[in-house]
Amino acid sequence: MTAHHPVDSLLMKHSYDQVRRLSETLASPYSEADQTVQSMPDASPLKWHLAHTTWFFETFILKPMVSNYKVFNPKYEYLFNSYYNSVGSQFPRSNRGLITRPGKEEVLEYRGYVDAAMHSVLEERSDRLDRRLVQLLELGLAHEQQHQELMVTDIQHAMSFNPLYPKVTDNPKVFEAPAELGWVSVAEGLYEVGNANEAFCFDNETPRHKVYLHSFRAADRLVTNSEYIRFIKAGGYQDPLLWLSEGWAWKSEHQIEAPLYWQQSEGEWQAYSLAGLQALDPNAPVRHVSYFEANAYAQWANARLLTEFEWEVLASSHPEIVDQYDPAVLATKPAQANAKDIQLFNQLWQWTASQYLPYPGFEVQEGAVGEYNGKFMSNQFVLRGGSFVTPPSHVRTTYRNFFPATTRWQFTGIRIARND
Amino acid sequence: MTAHHPVDSLLMKHSYDQVRRLSETLASPYSEADQTVQSMPDASPLKWHLAHTTWFFETFILKPMVSNYKVFNPKYEYLFNSYYNSVGSQFPRSNRGLITRPGKEEVLEYRGYVDAAMHSVLEERSDRLDRRLVQLLELGLAHEQQHQELMVTDIQHAMSFNPLYPKVTDNPKVFEAPAELGWVSVAEGLYEVGNANEAFCFDNETPRHKVYLHSFRAADRLVTNSEYIRFIKAGGYQDPLLWLSEGWAWKSEHQIEAPLYWQQSEGEWQAYSLAGLQALDPNAPVRHVSYFEANAYAQWANARLLTEFEWEVLASSHPEIVDQYDPAVLATKPAQANAKDIQLFNQLWQWTASQYLPYPGFEVQEGAVGEYNGKFMSNQFVLRGGSFVTPPSHVRTTYRNFFPATTRWQFTGIRIARND
Amino acid sequence: MTAHHPVDSLLMKHSYDQVRRLSETLASPYSEADQTVQSMPDASPLKWHLAHTTWFFETFILKPMVSNYKVFNPKYEYLFNSYYNSVGSQFPRSNRGLITRPGKEEVLEYRGYVDAAMHSVLEERSDRLDRRLVQLLELGLAHEQQHQELMVTDIQHAMSFNPLYPKVTDNPKVFEAPAELGWVSVAEGLYEVGNANEAFCFDNETPRHKVYLHSFRAADRLVTNSEYIRFIKAGGYQDPLLWLSEGWAWKSEHQIEAPLYWQQSEGEWQAYSLAGLQALDPNAPVRHVSYFEANAYAQWANARLLTEFEWEVLASSHPEIVDQYDPAVLATKPAQANAKDIQLFNQLWQWTASQYLPYPGFEVQEGAVGEYNGKFMSNQFVLRGGSFVTPPSHVRTTYRNFFPATTRWQFTGIRIARND
Amino acid sequence: MTAHHPVDSLLMKHSYDQVRRLSETLASPYSEADQTVQSMPDASPLKWHLAHTTWFFETFILKPMVSNYKVFNPKYEYLFNSYYNSVGSQFPRSNRGLITRPGKEEVLEYRGYVDAAMHSVLEERSDRLDRRLVQLLELGLAHEQQHQELMVTDIQHAMSFNPLYPKVTDNPKVFEAPAELGWVSVAEGLYEVGNANEAFCFDNETPRHKVYLHSFRAADRLVTNSEYIRFIKAGGYQDPLLWLSEGWAWKSEHQIEAPLYWQQSEGEWQAYSLAGLQALDPNAPVRHVSYFEANAYAQWANARLLTEFEWEVLASSHPEIVDQYDPAVLATKPAQANAKDIQLFNQLWQWTASQYLPYPGFEVQEGAVGEYNGKFMSNQFVLRGGSFVTPPSHVRTTYRNFFPATTRWQFTGIRIARND
Repeated sequence: MTAHHPVDSLLMKHSYDQVRRLSETLASPYSEADQTVQSMPDASPLKWHLAHTTWFFETFILKPMVSNYKVFNPKYEYLFNSYYNSVGSQFPRSNRGLITRPGKEEVLEYRGYVDAAMHSVLEERSDRLDRRLVQLLELGLAHEQQHQELMVTDIQHAMSFNPLYPKVTDNPKVFEAPAELGWVSVAEGLYEVGNANEAFCFDNETPRHKVYLHSFRAADRLVTNSEYIRFIKAGGYQDPLLWLSEGWAWKSEHQIEAPLYWQQSEGEWQAYSLAGLQALDPNAPVRHVSYFEANAYAQWANARLLTEFEWEVLASSHPEIVDQYDPAVLATKPAQANAKDIQLFNQLWQWTASQYLPYPGFEVQEGAVGEYNGKFMSNQFVLRGGSFVTPPSHVRTTYRNFFPATTRWQFTGIRIARND
Repeated sequence: MTAHHPVDSLLMKHSYDQVRRLSETLASPYSEADQTVQSMPDASPLKWHLAHTTWFFETFILKPMVSNYKVFNPKYEYLFNSYYNSVGSQFPRSNRGLITRPGKEEVLEYRGYVDAAMHSVLEERSDRLDRRLVQLLELGLAHEQQHQELMVTDIQHAMSFNPLYPKVTDNPKVFEAPAELGWVSVAEGLYEVGNANEAFCFDNETPRHKVYLHSFRAADRLVTNSEYIRFIKAGGYQDPLLWLSEGWAWKSEHQIEAPLYWQQSEGEWQAYSLAGLQALDPNAPVRHVSYFEANAYAQWANARLLTEFEWEVLASSHPEIVDQYDPAVLATKPAQANAKDIQLFNQLWQWTASQYLPYPGFEVQEGAVGEYNGKFMSNQFVLRGGSFVTPPSHVRTTYRNFFPATTRWQFTGIRIARND
Repeated sequence: MTAHHPVDSLLMKHSYDQVRRLSETLASPYSEADQTVQSMPDASPLKWHLAHTTWFFETFILKPMVSNYKVFNPKYEYLFNSYYNSVGSQFPRSNRGLITRPGKEEVLEYRGYVDAAMHSVLEERSDRLDRRLVQLLELGLAHEQQHQELMVTDIQHAMSFNPLYPKVTDNPKVFEAPAELGWVSVAEGLYEVGNANEAFCFDNETPRHKVYLHSFRAADRLVTNSEYIRFIKAGGYQDPLLWLSEGWAWKSEHQIEAPLYWQQSEGEWQAYSLAGLQALDPNAPVRHVSYFEANAYAQWANARLLTEFEWEVLASSHPEIVDQYDPAVLATKPAQANAKDIQLFNQLWQWTASQYLPYPGFEVQEGAVGEYNGKFMSNQFVLRGGSFVTPPSHVRTTYRNFFPATTRWQFTGIRIARND
Repeated sequence: MTAHHPVDSLLMKHSYDQVRRLSETLASPYSEADQTVQSMPDASPLKWHLAHTTWFFETFILKPMVSNYKVFNPKYEYLFNSYYNSVGSQFPRSNRGLITRPGKEEVLEYRGYVDAAMHSVLEERSDRLDRRLVQLLELGLAHEQQHQELMVTDIQHAMSFNPLYPKVTDNPKVFEAPAELGWVSVAEGLYEVGNANEAFCFDNETPRHKVYLHSFRAADRLVTNSEYIRFIKAGGYQDPLLWLSEGWAWKSEHQIEAPLYWQQSEGEWQAYSLAGLQALDPNAPVRHVSYFEANAYAQWANARLLTEFEWEVLASSHPEIVDQYDPAVLATKPAQANAKDIQLFNQLWQWTASQYLPYPGFEVQEGAVGEYNGKFMSNQFVLRGGSFVTPPSHVRTTYRNFFPATTRWQFTGIRIARND
């Protein structure tokens, strides 16, 4: 999470503003009501995301570093603290959707108030941006970018309960028929994985360390909807031998028979997204599957999922198969961000066969920011890659995303692998 | 539920407009966000109330009676059906707070659309308002008035979760110290209860029938906050002998130690209402208590609650103790309704010791409106009287309100009684 | 609950021994394992019933009345207290089935120990059985008799989970085809109901008081299995208009489509009882139905259930239709009781349309025994009559049994009625 | 799971008998009632263990391999199938404690019946014990041995609910004060782990493969009760920074403040075991802790837990610190097994920091026995070592035990480690 490079205060301010504006742009197509509701404890209201990311800067930079800083509203410390026990108690997560006030205008006011204070900090210290401040700034921005992705997944989830199937964006990408699935091999050997930490990264990506991998080969693209439909038609959801025991129980209890957001109408599959309820694109990569579904699919295909280290080594050596979208487009994306066109790209987070655990030598940071990552290291699976709504600067080979095995509302997909 | 009196179409239209406008007035101080959220399955969003009461007219009058009537939106039949199985399946009650769209403007549009169609009906049939239409109109208006009360209770409940304690109304009434509690006696004998049905009433108030009462006496006013605090201080919430078994389990599980909305700050009781978080008025009647608390209080006071028939006979013979607000003011209230001044009066619904059951000879109405009342006749307790937000035309001695014994978010209070 | 008649100590001892032995006889066909398990919190292990009824005498008679009485085991006070908060805290109800020790032999030892002490009390005070002692003795015996019925219902429920369908008794009664259902009328008028308290009764049957009834007629026999099957075949479980709202939700959640213990095998209905899994007897009265099912059946039959007062007046004026078993046989039953022949008679508890509430002037008894009945007066329905396993001395017109509306493991049946 | 060594049929029969007798010996001190009950879905009744292990031989060896084999009772296939979906549906796990019949005598009869048939198999094929049969026999015995350990943990759990604190064994070992905790180092490097499969092992221990370890040092003994009490006194259960997020939620919800079976009496800690409720031995290794508690303790001690591969390499290179009990005693233990002296040894299963996942190249076995291990590879943590009730032949460096992070009723302990 450290940054060793020299930091230009102006550049920092530019990044700050760019990230902060994008959050607001992402929220802009949504009504006051849309921004208020919460469809499950795991998801949060858009307005809450806008406020919480602001609270992060106020709590970890402005309050400790700016003498005489006056908080915007003392009750926000409680209201918009997500899970930092060392900061204080938290408003119950499952009740976030009841907070109708502050309204979205007041939340934007709060953002403006904190932005102004942050600008002062950056200006006043333009010649002496100390290392701790830069670290926290980078963390705060990366944190807000993570929430930008959640804003999309969370609002889509909330909207999906509405039988009117609200349509917020237009023209979802239509996929061409993909090539036959090919395989890429990686040789047995000792590899280095993890982030060497020269630019910003999260603490859970460090330290860089050695792993020994046995040879394997990985699919050169993700599983598509039409391939997944074959799995469904072959009775994949009815064959217990394909499933982990826990996954079978989960699937049975919730009567799951297809990815999230799918529904059948007169024998044809449709899927809900922010582009409304649409016929399923057979060529698009299947998304909104749980780890259990990804694993069952792989079993059915006489394959398996990659471990997170296999994935990382694969991605380093074969970037072409991991990063399928045009980096030139992405590089300019934040500047021209338009909340209406977020569904352009096809990349999905890829479930790995690795549970989320600390790297050898991992050290939790001192203080409240130490609660950022380490305390979630139990009973989650690592996802690698990135999705079409992941901020491009987060799309790096060492990035570790993580969710419980039942998670489906994220933009998750499947890449299969085999022992060589 | 029948109306035998001659009906004037113009008067009907006037009533219709008056009731419909009041609903909108009641919602008007609340933001789009406020109107969208739902704090528990028992409560509904304001916007939903506005739409559902409209759906009622569309479903039970316009669709069956107006040829070629075109519904505003076919999906609303599913979305805004509360519990009428004979009309069709219903959007899950506990998810009403996820319906961000239609927004409040569109809901008002829906109301306008239906109102226009209803106006046509009333105008076209001005000379021949048939009995069935009048019955359904009266029922639709009474139904909407019931929802007007729920709008207040539901939004207060939703707001109460907000640690900012939103304040929507001003100047709550300050109560004068009440007189010493007095007793009013009713003699043993055969009485008639229930509605003789000359003006509109709900089906559950009929038929009028005979009951034999043993003599009793009833308190001439409701229990006050200061009296209830004495009960708390005497350990009332800790003595199992005062409680019904089910009530004790409920109280213990939810760690209840005071009425809903009460909290202690530095040893002083405060209560949240739409007037914000305020010091408790010791002279005001205690409100937001469950049946279990009302019954435990009565036990502690060596008393009991009235049965619903005792209450009705008491109210008929001693209207002065039941209806403590000025009828002159109330009569004009709807016309001058102002959502800001709803907290003026002190009257509360009074828990009775009667479970909600059909009267001898009670007949469920044919068709979907038969689902209005009868199907709820199990495991609820009857409340009698009315509260400061009850539409005055509903405040009659035969009116039967009913809720489960754990209900606290309604404006419920306590009147005690003793065997004579 | 008071007894005004002169009491003979020897007769009392005889009754005591007769009741106590019957409990042991009822338990005798069951293995140590059978007697230990608990199939739901509402049911208790046989061994627990044997111990708890003994605890009742120890707690309410021996400990307060016998100086220097030494309890059998001080921990039993906690272990075998059912719900008497004034006696002390209770072992959690839902864990009763984990108490493998004391074993059944030790429980019988406990019974013998307490019986010996009770004998001493009765002998020592043979010339001065004071009124309080007699009251408590009668209550203790009536209490144990109530548990005798529960022993049968509870063990049948526990056994029913076993796919081996254990058979404990033989030769269940085969019913003859009943006569066409007839009707018995009761005239409108003022009646007296409740127990005048000349012999023993429970406190909830008092005081005797006046009620005014409107005219009605009642079926002269209970609904049979074949009649109930017609209701099922007519789609009774699928028509929401027949059901109370709460009942519909309960039925749907638990996917209930027939009475408890029924199952279909190749299109034929079978029912489990202590006589094993057997083809359903079409002529037997339908049993193991909830209040919700009883009420839905009555709706479907264009009828309703009787109120408890209608039932009591009916039973007093037409004993022949209520008490269909031969009293001569019953009178001698306890003496010749044989646990194997308990399934001889056809009578069932009959759901009434009355919720369980106190009678006018009802007073809870002082002290712990005051917790016997009064505290359960919410959200239960009254059943009247008695079943083939009800102790004959409990079969009286004023007896009030009560259970929640979803109860099915009791021997419950249906008698329908109509307004005249 | 394969066995390449030549197999002597007589030796096999000897092993078979030894293992089968030990199960019965372990059950023998328990009453019919003790053997019947189930205290939670994760635990099973003793009687069920005895039957299920027998069912395993019947299902996987006798039925497929012995022509004309007649099953003891066809319903047992359903009743005693634990989780093998490919064999058929299963009696609901959480209801195992309701199966009072077959009684323990009948279960022993079932065991005898299957043992006789197994003897015939072994005798008839004494000269041609084919490889598949030997594999299944070894698996069946290893399976029964695993259940032997569960028999102890499950009955202790069931007994612990009894406020009489039943005492089944005597003279628990008293521990001497341990030496100061020392550290053992392991150097960075490439190691081989996993079972090379020369003798019997479970499929999840294979294949043997290479892992790269960074240097670390491990404690030379387990954490003791007195050390753990220091953690408690230092507020370890109240400091969220020591806990994984999920662990903190679990601990808070269940109000956990000490290991399972501990309770305080007048300021002194006591613990329940099959030796009854006893004062806590300060020198004994702390046991009955969850992964969350083990991890929190390690955090507090500025340490961490070992990964499963670190543990395995440590155990291979430093057997003296892992295997603290006398192998000479253990080797002879099964022969002289006495259910009363099972609590002699001090070794505990040790939580590792590794979630339970397949090894590189792991292949699930064909057929129903393929459901043995692989399908549980999600959201569990690996434990290594063995406990004082683990069959000695299972105590090997490659053995992988696994349980959810909240598990406490197993004999679990803590070994801490540090980065070197």
